[in-house]
Amino acid sequence: MSKIPYRFYLTEDRMPKQWYNLRADMPEQPDPMLNPATLEPLREEDLYPIFCKELAHQEMDSETAYIDIPEEIQEMYRIYRPSPLIRAYNLEKALGTPARIYYKFEGNNTSGSHKLNSAIAQAYYAKKQGLTSLTTETGAGQWGTALSEACAYFGIPLTVYMVKCSYNQKPYRKAVMQTFDANVIPSPSDTTEVGRRILADDPDTTGSLGCAISEAVEKATTTSGCRYVLGSVLNQVLLHQSIIGLEAKTAMEMLGEYPDIVIGCAGGGSNLGGLIAPFMRDKLVDKKDIRFIAVEPASCPSLTRGKYAYDFCDTGRVTPMARMYTLGCGFIPSANHAGGLRYHGMSPILSKLYHDGYMEAVAYEQTKVFEAAKLFARVETILPAPESSHAIKCAVDEALKCKETGEEKTILFGLTGTGYFDMTAYSAFNEGKMTDYIPTDEDLQRAFDMLPKV
Amino acid sequence: MSKIPYRFYLTEDRMPKQWYNLRADMPEQPDPMLNPATLEPLREEDLYPIFCKELAHQEMDSETAYIDIPEEIQEMYRIYRPSPLIRAYNLEKALGTPARIYYKFEGNNTSGSHKLNSAIAQAYYAKKQGLTSLTTETGAGQWGTALSEACAYFGIPLTVYMVKCSYNQKPYRKAVMQTFDANVIPSPSDTTEVGRRILADDPDTTGSLGCAISEAVEKATTTSGCRYVLGSVLNQVLLHQSIIGLEAKTAMEMLGEYPDIVIGCAGGGSNLGGLIAPFMRDKLVDKKDIRFIAVEPASCPSLTRGKYAYDFCDTGRVTPMARMYTLGCGFIPSANHAGGLRYHGMSPILSKLYHDGYMEAVAYEQTKVFEAAKLFARVETILPAPESSHAIKCAVDEALKCKETGEEKTILFGLTGTGYFDMTAYSAFNEGKMTDYIPTDEDLQRAFDMLPKV
Repeated sequence: MSKIPYRFYLTEDRMPKQWYNLRADMPEQPDPMLNPATLEPLREEDLYPIFCKELAHQEMDSETAYIDIPEEIQEMYRIYRPSPLIRAYNLEKALGTPARIYYKFEGNNTSGSHKLNSAIAQAYYAKKQGLTSLTTETGAGQWGTALSEACAYFGIPLTVYMVKCSYNQKPYRKAVMQTFDANVIPSPSDTTEVGRRILADDPDTTGSLGCAISEAVEKATTTSGCRYVLGSVLNQVLLHQSIIGLEAKTAMEMLGEYPDIVIGCAGGGSNLGGLIAPFMRDKLVDKKDIRFIAVEPASCPSLTRGKYAYDFCDTGRVTPMARMYTLGCGFIPSANHAGGLRYHGMSPILSKLYHDGYMEAVAYEQTKVFEAAKLFARVETILPAPESSHAIKCAVDEALKCKETGEEKTILFGLTGTGYFDMTAYSAFNEGKMTDYIPTDEDLQRAFDMLPKV
Repeated sequence: MSKIPYRFYLTEDRMPKQWYNLRADMPEQPDPMLNPATLEPLREEDLYPIFCKELAHQEMDSETAYIDIPEEIQEMYRIYRPSPLIRAYNLEKALGTPARIYYKFEGNNTSGSHKLNSAIAQAYYAKKQGLTSLTTETGAGQWGTALSEACAYFGIPLTVYMVKCSYNQKPYRKAVMQTFDANVIPSPSDTTEVGRRILADDPDTTGSLGCAISEAVEKATTTSGCRYVLGSVLNQVLLHQSIIGLEAKTAMEMLGEYPDIVIGCAGGGSNLGGLIAPFMRDKLVDKKDIRFIAVEPASCPSLTRGKYAYDFCDTGRVTPMARMYTLGCGFIPSANHAGGLRYHGMSPILSKLYHDGYMEAVAYEQTKVFEAAKLFARVETILPAPESSHAIKCAVDEALKCKETGEEKTILFGLTGTGYFDMTAYSAFNEGKMTDYIPTDEDLQRAFDMLPKV
C-alpha cells in the first residue's frame, strides 16, 4: 500500500479563500465581447440589465488575479466541499499502466455536479444586491438543479425555463428543482412574449435551449428586481469554478505530486476552465511543462472542428457576440447522451488558450466513452456522468500510452458528476442500442455559412 | 465560526481495521434462530447451504467482540470511505436550537446508501470460498445496487430477483445494476419452480418481496457454487455495518464530542444496528448515559406496535424463525415511500436491546417525515432518502425539545442515503398528493393471528 490515500480531502483551513482569475496571467486576452447592434466592445454597464453588478464586474475584470471569496459563499462551500482528490489505484491496476492517475470528483453534492460552485456565487451576489428573483434555463437539468439548491439556501426565488421535452422526459430532475422550491416552467410557455409567439407558430413544439434562454432573458429584463444567470461559457463562471483547480493543486502538492497532463471534458468550458486555471498559470507564468487536454464529443466538436470566430452565445441570437471556437449558433447537435456537452461554442478564455497553442483537444464517439465509463464504474465504484466519462476515456488512452512507453506520468482529470439521471443512456449502451454520430463536413459548412459577418 | 468543521473526514490511518460485534457485550443474548421444521436451535452448519461458511460463522458468533476486516475489504472501503461526519450548523440555525446536531452521511457512493458496507463483505467472503455466483432479491433497489457494485468489483456473477412492479416502475435502478453486470430478473419468473408455480396461478401478478426471496433462495440452493445473500436483519449485516458507528465514534472523539442521543431509521435494522454498536457498548459496559432512538414509519411500526415473538424472516415462510419484534410475516405494509422501511420484523439484536429497555422507538407519519426532509434539503443541501428522513424528523424533534428546555445536548443521527431514486415520492409530497396510513389495531391483530405457534 502506497502512502498516498485513495481519497484525499483538504481540511477546512486549507480550502481556498480566493478564486483565481486566469485572465490576469494570460499573455494575450480573449477578444472583447461585442454589442450585436453596434459591433462595439461591451462595457461593464451594458451588462447591468442582465447580470447583477458584481457579476458584471467579474465578467469584465481581466486584471485582478485573486478575488476574495465572500465569507457567506465560503460557508456554503464548506457544506459540501472540499471535493475529494481520488487516486485511481484500481483503474491503474485494471489498465496495467505505470501512470499515476488522479481525479477530482465534483459529484458529491445533491446537484450531482460541479455546477453548484458557480450557482452559489451567482445566487449570493444577486441576493446581496437586493434583487428579488432570478431566472435561468436548463436543458439536461444539472444547472437548474444546482441553481435551485443555491437559491433555496440564500432565499431568493428562482424561475427555471426547462426545455419542454426535458420537462416531460425528466420528471425526476424537475421534481428535485421543485423540492428546492424553484418555479419550473416548460419552455416555450405563455409567460413570455417570445414563448407565446413560438407557441402560436407551433403549438406542439417540444422546445429548444435557445428558446428557453430567450424566455429566461426576457423574463429577467422585463421583471423588476430580476436578473438572468448562466452556468457556463462566461468568464465569471470559470472564475468561480477555479475552486476545483485550486483545491486539486493544493491537494496534489500536499501529496508530493504534480500533474504532467490535466484532462477535462468540455461543453461550454465551466469545468475544464476551473480545473486547469491554477495549473495553466504555472505553464504561462512559471513555464512549467504541462499538457492540457480538452475532451469533446465527436458529435459536437467545437474545438476540434469549429471555427475561431465571433458568434452569438445563444441560438436565439439575442445575446452579445463572443469570439470563440464555434460550430455556429445555428448548429443543431444530434442526440448525444452527454447533454452538457452539446453547446455550439466554447468559453472565450479556453478558445483563446487553445488558439494560442497552450491546450490540446480531442473528440470521442459516445460508444467509446461509455465503454470507458463502464470500466471506470466497475473498478472505481463511481457511476460517472456521460459528460465526465469523456475525460475518463482520454485519461485511459493517455495511461495506455504510458503503458506502451513505460513512462510514469502523473495524470489528473476532472470527474464532474454522477450519472444517476442518465440511466436512459446507460440502458441504451447496455442493450447495444447506442449509436454514434459524426457531423459531415457539409453539415458543418452549412452552420458556418450562418455565422454573423463581423 | 466554531473550530468544528462542517464536514469531518477521518484520514485513512484512523479508519477502523476491525468490525465490532455488539453481541459479545450484551448482558443477555438474542434468542437463537430456530429450524422451522424441528423447532430446534440452528447450528452453524445448518446455514452452510444458504450462506458461505465465514458468513455463517459470523452469523452465529456471539463471543468475538472485534473481528478483523480482511485487507481486501478494507481496500474497497477506502475507495468510498470514510464517510463524512457532518455538523448540521445550518439545521441548528434554522431550528434555533442550542443542541449540537451531527449526522453520519452514508450516501456518498454510487449505490447511494450504507448497504454497500455489508455487500462488499458478503461478496468478498463468497469469492474467497471459491463460490461461483450469488443471488439476492431487491425491492426498492438499494441493496441490489450495492451488491451489484460489490460483485462487479470482486468479479463474482450476481443474479438479482427484482419485484416485478419495481422492475417495471424503476427502470433506472435496474439500469444501474445492469451497468454493474448484474443479471436482473423480474420476479416472479420462470427461472425457478416457485416462480413458475406463482405465474401459473396468476400470470399477471406484479410480485412481492416474499416471492423474490423465495426465488433467490431456491436458485442459490439448487445451483452448484451459488449462495444467497441478504442486506439487513442478520447479525452478520449488523456486524459489517458497525463500520458506520466506529468511524462516527472516532470522529466525534477527535472533535472532543460525544452524543447524548443517537438516532437512526429502522427497517430491518442494518443502519441503526451499525450506527449505535460502539456507543451501545459504552452504555452496556461503561454505563454511559446515552439514549438510542429507533425511528420507524407509522405505516409499518414493528417496534412500537409489534409483538416480540418467534416469526419467519420472510413472507414466504421458508427461512429459519427468529425471535424479534414483528408485525407478523403475513403483514402487508401499505404503500409507503420509504421502501427500505417496509419490513415486517426487526433485527433480533435490536429487538432484544429494545425489549430489555436499552433503546427507545418512535413512529412517524410520512408527510411529517417529508416536511423534515424538505427543510433539511434546503438548509443542508443534501436531498435525503425517505428512509433517512425518518431519522431527520426525530433529530429535529429532539433539537426542538432542547430549544424549549435550553439544554445543549449533542445529537447524532444516521443519514443513510440520498433520495435521487425517490423523486416520485418527493413529487407526490410537493404536489400535496401524499397521504398517510396507519394500520388499525384490527389490521395488526389479523397479522398477529397468523404468527407461527412456537
